[in-house]
Amino acid sequence: RRQGLPEVVYGPGKTAEQVVGIVRGLLAANTGPVLATRIEPATAATVLDAVPDGTYDERARLLCWRPAPVRAVRLVVVTAGTSDGPVAAEAAAVATAIGLDVTKVEDVGVAGLHRLLRVRPVLADADCVIVVAGMEGALASAVGGLVAAPVIAVPTSTGYGAALEGVTALLAMLSSCAAGLTVVNIDSGFAAAMAAHRLAMKIEPARKP
Amino acid sequence: RRQGLPEVVYGPGKTAEQVVGIVRGLLAANTGPVLATRIEPATAATVLDAVPDGTYDERARLLCWRPAPVRAVRLVVVTAGTSDGPVAAEAAAVATAIGLDVTKVEDVGVAGLHRLLRVRPVLADADCVIVVAGMEGALASAVGGLVAAPVIAVPTSTGYGAALEGVTALLAMLSSCAAGLTVVNIDSGFAAAMAAHRLAMKIEPARKP
Amino acid sequence: RRQGLPEVVYGPGKTAEQVVGIVRGLLAANTGPVLATRIEPATAATVLDAVPDGTYDERARLLCWRPAPVRAVRLVVVTAGTSDGPVAAEAAAVATAIGLDVTKVEDVGVAGLHRLLRVRPVLADADCVIVVAGMEGALASAVGGLVAAPVIAVPTSTGYGAALEGVTALLAMLSSCAAGLTVVNIDSGFAAAMAAHRLAMKIEPARKP
Amino acid sequence: RRQGLPEVVYGPGKTAEQVVGIVRGLLAANTGPVLATRIEPATAATVLDAVPDGTYDERARLLCWRPAPVRAVRLVVVTAGTSDGPVAAEAAAVATAIGLDVTKVEDVGVAGLHRLLRVRPVLADADCVIVVAGMEGALASAVGGLVAAPVIAVPTSTGYGAALEGVTALLAMLSSCAAGLTVVNIDSGFAAAMAAHRLAMKIEPARKP
Amino acid sequence: RRQGLPEVVYGPGKTAEQVVGIVRGLLAANTGPVLATRIEPATAATVLDAVPDGTYDERARLLCWRPAPVRAVRLVVVTAGTSDGPVAAEAAAVATAIGLDVTKVEDVGVAGLHRLLRVRPVLADADCVIVVAGMEGALASAVGGLVAAPVIAVPTSTGYGAALEGVTALLAMLSSCAAGLTVVNIDSGFAAAMAAHRLAMKIEPARKP
Amino acid sequence: RRQGLPEVVYGPGKTAEQVVGIVRGLLAANTGPVLATRIEPATAATVLDAVPDGTYDERARLLCWRPAPVRAVRLVVVTAGTSDGPVAAEAAAVATAIGLDVTKVEDVGVAGLHRLLRVRPVLADADCVIVVAGMEGALASAVGGLVAAPVIAVPTSTGYGAALEGVTALLAMLSSCAAGLTVVNIDSGFAAAMAAHRLAMKIEPARKP
Amino acid sequence: RRQGLPEVVYGPGKTAEQVVGIVRGLLAANTGPVLATRIEPATAATVLDAVPDGTYDERARLLCWRPAPVRAVRLVVVTAGTSDGPVAAEAAAVATAIGLDVTKVEDVGVAGLHRLLRVRPVLADADCVIVVAGMEGALASAVGGLVAAPVIAVPTSTGYGAALEGVTALLAMLSSCAAGLTVVNIDSGFAAAMAAHRLAMKIEPARKP
Amino acid sequence: RRQGLPEVVYGPGKTAEQVVGIVRGLLAANTGPVLATRIEPATAATVLDAVPDGTYDERARLLCWRPAPVRAVRLVVVTAGTSDGPVAAEAAAVATAIGLDVTKVEDVGVAGLHRLLRVRPVLADADCVIVVAGMEGALASAVGGLVAAPVIAVPTSTGYGAALEGVTALLAMLSSCAAGLTVVNIDSGFAAAMAAHRLAMKIEPARKP
Ligand SMILES: Nc1ncnc2c1ncn2[C@@H]1O[C@H](COP(=O)(O)O)[C@@H](O)[C@H]1O
Ligand SMILES: Nc1ncnc2c1ncn2[C@@H]1O[C@H](COP(=O)(O)O)[C@@H](O)[C@H]1O
Ligand SMILES: Nc1ncnc2c1ncn2[C@@H]1O[C@H](COP(=O)(O)O)[C@@H](O)[C@H]1O
Ligand SMILES: Nc1ncnc2c1ncn2[C@@H]1O[C@H](COP(=O)(O)O)[C@@H](O)[C@H]1O
Ligand SMILES: [Mg+2]
Ligand SMILES: [Mg+2]
Ligand SMILES: [Mg+2]
Ligand SMILES: [Mg+2]
Ligand SMILES: [Mg+2]
Ligand SMILES: [Mg+2]
Ligand SMILES: [Mg+2]
Ligand SMILES: [Mg+2]
Repeated sequence: RRQGLPEVVYGPGKTAEQVVGIVRGLLAANTGPVLATRIEPATAATVLDAVPDGTYDERARLLCWRPAPVRAVRLVVVTAGTSDGPVAAEAAAVATAIGLDVTKVEDVGVAGLHRLLRVRPVLADADCVIVVAGMEGALASAVGGLVAAPVIAVPTSTGYGAALEGVTALLAMLSSCAAGLTVVNIDSGFAAAMAAHRLAMKIEPARKP
Repeated sequence: RRQGLPEVVYGPGKTAEQVVGIVRGLLAANTGPVLATRIEPATAATVLDAVPDGTYDERARLLCWRPAPVRAVRLVVVTAGTSDGPVAAEAAAVATAIGLDVTKVEDVGVAGLHRLLRVRPVLADADCVIVVAGMEGALASAVGGLVAAPVIAVPTSTGYGAALEGVTALLAMLSSCAAGLTVVNIDSGFAAAMAAHRLAMKIEPARKP
Repeated sequence: RRQGLPEVVYGPGKTAEQVVGIVRGLLAANTGPVLATRIEPATAATVLDAVPDGTYDERARLLCWRPAPVRAVRLVVVTAGTSDGPVAAEAAAVATAIGLDVTKVEDVGVAGLHRLLRVRPVLADADCVIVVAGMEGALASAVGGLVAAPVIAVPTSTGYGAALEGVTALLAMLSSCAAGLTVVNIDSGFAAAMAAHRLAMKIEPARKP
Repeated sequence: RRQGLPEVVYGPGKTAEQVVGIVRGLLAANTGPVLATRIEPATAATVLDAVPDGTYDERARLLCWRPAPVRAVRLVVVTAGTSDGPVAAEAAAVATAIGLDVTKVEDVGVAGLHRLLRVRPVLADADCVIVVAGMEGALASAVGGLVAAPVIAVPTSTGYGAALEGVTALLAMLSSCAAGLTVVNIDSGFAAAMAAHRLAMKIEPARKP
Repeated sequence: RRQGLPEVVYGPGKTAEQVVGIVRGLLAANTGPVLATRIEPATAATVLDAVPDGTYDERARLLCWRPAPVRAVRLVVVTAGTSDGPVAAEAAAVATAIGLDVTKVEDVGVAGLHRLLRVRPVLADADCVIVVAGMEGALASAVGGLVAAPVIAVPTSTGYGAALEGVTALLAMLSSCAAGLTVVNIDSGFAAAMAAHRLAMKIEPARKP
Repeated sequence: RRQGLPEVVYGPGKTAEQVVGIVRGLLAANTGPVLATRIEPATAATVLDAVPDGTYDERARLLCWRPAPVRAVRLVVVTAGTSDGPVAAEAAAVATAIGLDVTKVEDVGVAGLHRLLRVRPVLADADCVIVVAGMEGALASAVGGLVAAPVIAVPTSTGYGAALEGVTALLAMLSSCAAGLTVVNIDSGFAAAMAAHRLAMKIEPARKP
Repeated sequence: RRQGLPEVVYGPGKTAEQVVGIVRGLLAANTGPVLATRIEPATAATVLDAVPDGTYDERARLLCWRPAPVRAVRLVVVTAGTSDGPVAAEAAAVATAIGLDVTKVEDVGVAGLHRLLRVRPVLADADCVIVVAGMEGALASAVGGLVAAPVIAVPTSTGYGAALEGVTALLAMLSSCAAGLTVVNIDSGFAAAMAAHRLAMKIEPARKP
Repeated sequence: RRQGLPEVVYGPGKTAEQVVGIVRGLLAANTGPVLATRIEPATAATVLDAVPDGTYDERARLLCWRPAPVRAVRLVVVTAGTSDGPVAAEAAAVATAIGLDVTKVEDVGVAGLHRLLRVRPVLADADCVIVVAGMEGALASAVGGLVAAPVIAVPTSTGYGAALEGVTALLAMLSSCAAGLTVVNIDSGFAAAMAAHRLAMKIEPARKP
């Protein structure tokens, strides 16, 4: 595997047959987890038939073989509303598949601060927080102000009009007044999970006695 | 005055002499307040010399003659940091000059939610709230979720890079998940005060016995 | 209900079953109106079957249960042409459902000023005016110059080419030379109605003897 | 002269010496008017010293030699406010120099429709109308709805924030609901005058007995 | 009819029944031509069944009743390639329906200057030229340099990538180095024809003895 | 200090006197490092006179009091050319001031891959890598492919034309094919250092015996 | 043929019948290769039935008649991943059809520099290199730094979010720090092949003894 | 020298002392030409004092030491107007310094096609053509249609309003209907010259017996 990161197949534009071929190759060449992202249900069924022992998470659109055992690195994935759910699901499913200890916190938007404040203990416990938010993306700033841990913000393309298919949330997160937030591409739960994995590879060995 | 709104001179692109001429005309034609916005200090000094009984608010860059007496409509102007100060000052000074009862709340950004929650009683008491915020503009969403009163959001051009000179805050406020926020142009403390004035003209007579 | 505003379900991305579940929860938890916006006809039929006593406004794409009784706050919804109709319908239907006294004024574009001037008495009577306009959005400036009441402008995504799916109308309304206009997101009849509701909550108690 | 249009020197980026040289060449090669646009006062003074019998219009920043006699084609240049004045001045000065019979109508914005309606007789008399407007550019739509003559809209870069240095007015004019408006580049009073000139060359000979 | 322009129904978003109703109303209220633009073939068939004596131009997607007799004003519609054909067809069909004497010139792009130069006599004869061009829109500059008549440029949304759905051609035409070009909205053959009609109404009476 | 992060004063828009006041307050209220970013040399001199024991890094434009002792967390700051130097200097100086063990690697652009490959051992040793790059920002992708550690990309506003003042590098970094890169705002060496600090606070205690 | 370049039919917006007609005309009028680009499989089948002796490359969506014999000019087409494949296929197929000696190099992205360095001998041998890359387009910079030959970069619309349908790769390639890269339109394998052909027409005769 | 290209110092952001240091290093390390671009006159004077035997081209803002002897590769640099002159000067001066045989053709815009057609023999003789054009950039399409040689288009930032500081010309050139044009960054005469140099290195040896 390149530099310790799992090889992940990107589904769009590939036929089920192409995915089968690449996945088989990766399973043979490595011993760790093998993933395929953004796979539609019909494609997933065909691929799982051809390559045994995999699982499919429909909400996350993720295929997974040989998931990693859970490591002692706590990731919290926070999201504001139901519409950002699929992106949060991708982040959580990819992170779980590569061995992070994932907790999901849902329905905590900035328009209802008390719900956000109630989950503060869960956030305080995290080694890393992924914030998934669309529309104005303000949740990232609020979480960034509550925790000292690394915060990875994922803008989503939910919303309409001035939300500009995620560009507004992206720009807002990059301009956040909460210091030290980092940002990944629009709708990329995958990228956020991989960024968390890079952190985990540094934190985990440090913890080992 | 057109439709009950004060006539206000827009300073940029006008010489001190032009401002003097227009202000004199308005003072003669009406009996209410006369304002000039975005006036630089040197111009202000010249104009005040030529047209007596005016005052100049340097932070707000506002000239004012014949301010209105305070009316029973409470406006709160909220801002996150010192860099948004001049725009908040313009909103507050214009609103005061046209008779609103203005309270300023400063330094309450979303990256420090407890300071924002501490001022909740002040917000709860408002007939109208103006939120002035740059960068990602998230403060508008948080305030919009805390109060039931009309909230007018003013994006500012503070920040750099992805803040896009206020465009990011503007788009974020328009995309806010807090229902029923309204938005005015970037850096327009003036427009927000005028929008509050339109509200006040409806609320105040309703209150009179 | 959060801060006195009605909870409103946002339809896109939710199955009929999910809408049913959320609406049932809200009806049980509150006593006021419950709404669901942007609901397609087929979904609406399924939801109405499952949750009795609701109504569906197809043009507005709005589901409503327990509408509020009409309050003494007059809202006028103005629109220029037939293509902006669905957005105006959403604004009017949401506002009616939450108790505003709504009048609709249609087919009064700036390219035919005399029709607009003919409706001036209706506008003069309003506590609040919502202007729904696409293309260049000039109607908002014209109405803003005719009335002293609060004016909430809703840009729509009608038009083609340089209309940029509503962005042009949005920018034009924010840049309007009519002082004190406020603006909400593109196509958001819902947001405009909620902004009017915030205002109504301030006017109505003041009017009560 | 190329295809019957006057040769006009574009000033920016040229030294006074370069302008002198080009103007001398054009005066020698042709017999009609010679113009230089966007010339700053200091440059203008130097050029006028070197090339006799010219005039300089400071507001329009236009140098002119051998203006054409007035032709029987009536052009009206309409503008909303003082800040659009320099662009309107350029349109009027260029048009006058090339022989159009120009009337200026000022201070008629859409936020004050009655002033606009008062000048309707002047507009009705025009062979061509140039509308110069910044901010949201709504004046072009209103004028386009009032007259049947050709209307040429010039967006200006006045305004701030969402006015986007004239781009908003440009897009709004192109999206106008008034049928058959045409548009030229931002701040280009020159282009509008030249477009009027193209029209005049068709109308005038037709009128001659 | 408003200010002498024909009333034209804009098809998108209207059912065949709605179009029938509006067209019947306009035929009854006026005596001149009645048009409906952007009508799909199926809708057109239904409408023509219900409202007799109309014609449908499928390429132009135009319905027409009571076309005007041909007037002595020559319009040339120029286009570079087959992909801009439908927009040129709309311009020509609308212009013909309202009485202009239309000539079409096709397949003369700037990448083949000799074909363009060959049609110069046709262009020289025009009272007005409409240039329809997509991609980089350079044809408008070339034609603008060849003729002294009014030139109306219509950018089209043909092309891909950097053509940005017509925005590139629009910006290029507005920035053209050919003086006095005017521009209408992307793909709006209709707007160009209406602009030509405004010109024709000035040129034609001037010609009459 | 809020959530364990150092309080840092943002210089732009503040007078030397304001900076002095805020820094004094922070030095009195906390015991850790106190920083002020984006301070021009003249302001820095005045502030250092008034508040003893500080240092000024002119390239980084950073004022610092009470720097933290070096911690066992290795940060590498990589940059391609001399023009990105000031942003890299800010990242390195802020990170050093808050206790990270910083190594700088310069002049390793993707147009000269061998220089980049030569520094691979230094990169392999890092706990975290900050990549500062302007123009097309490709260096971030190349580094992201070489190391497994967390990579924080900082786009800079160097370059011209299509570099769009850093927006191109920003978008490119967000779209990078190297999995798990994270990105901060344009020119924000500060944000990158703070993101590294959040990570360090997780790694360091884990490492302590 | 115009200036020595092959005439190529652009498929989109044309019916199979139109393509047949144009291709027949070109085959009759010239003796060299005739191509049609962006042809869907169904259209291709119909056209090949009607016009004998052609071939269809489905991946490249290219129809070809009378391909040119291979000339002594070596073109290498480089691409990073499978998703950019169709654009690379178009570049290679068009170039082959017009007589270039084409080698394809695949799966060499900047996130895996060693694979890129392994193909250096192939690149060193090229007379011209076409780099096809989407997302952040960094591959063009890396190749531009490795070879002295002309490099033509083709941005592709693969990727999502911040990739902005190819605009990010386009801007990045134009801003590349590798000196002397040139760029063509997004997804235009065709344009790149034609640019290579222009070069080949200069190299080849020079090589002939 | 990297891959056969001359090393060129990029002036902006460097002090005269820094330029002196880098140039001395390059002169010592190589034997070929050494250039420094975008150097202001004052800096140039200082550098030439310190590093003997250099020359400065003020219009091109180029410093050059050890220019290459002229090679048998003909480059023509075409430009439309005087305002694009500095960029054309940079292209010509850099190309001359690295040994190309440069001819300049000026003042041939598309609005005057006959002047362009008159220079056709010069263009026909070129091994490579660089077209420098601002505003709508249409000259590149016209030249691309006239010659079969490689054409490199350089958009410039001249013009105003819709010219968008060169972005319009850039997009127009990329969208050109002339097949096989390639494009470099806005205002980058340097990049165009380097692209021509890459071509020359292939053409020249092919020519040698
Ligand atoms: N959802 C995703 N978003 C972005 N990149 C991805 C995603 N899934 C996989 N990748 C990356 O895509 C590359 C594989 O692409 P491919 O060879 O087309 O399957 C690997 O570098 C993965 O890290
Ligand atoms: N049409 C709409 N546009 C914008 N926001 C809406 C709309 N309808 C409901 N909402 C808001 O969406 C939130 C509910 O979202 P959800 O939980 O996804 O149903 C509430 O805050 C509503 O105020
Ligand atoms: N193709 C078109 N593009 C732009 N405006 C049009 C078009 N066709 C008709 N119109 C205008 O649309 C208005 C009629 O719109 P409607 O009432 O929705 O049919 C009239 O003002 C027409 O001038
Ligand atoms: N005018 C210019 N535009 C773009 N790149 C340039 C220019 N002049 C020099 N360069 C490139 O800049 C790099 C040198 O940058 P520097 O090390 O900052 O002097 C070299 O790769 C040159 O090819
Ligand atoms: Mg959200
Ligand atoms: Mg702020
Ligand atoms: Mg409208
Ligand atoms: Mg104006
Ligand atoms: Mg075309
Ligand atoms: Mg760089
Ligand atoms: Mg790629
Ligand atoms: Mg030019």
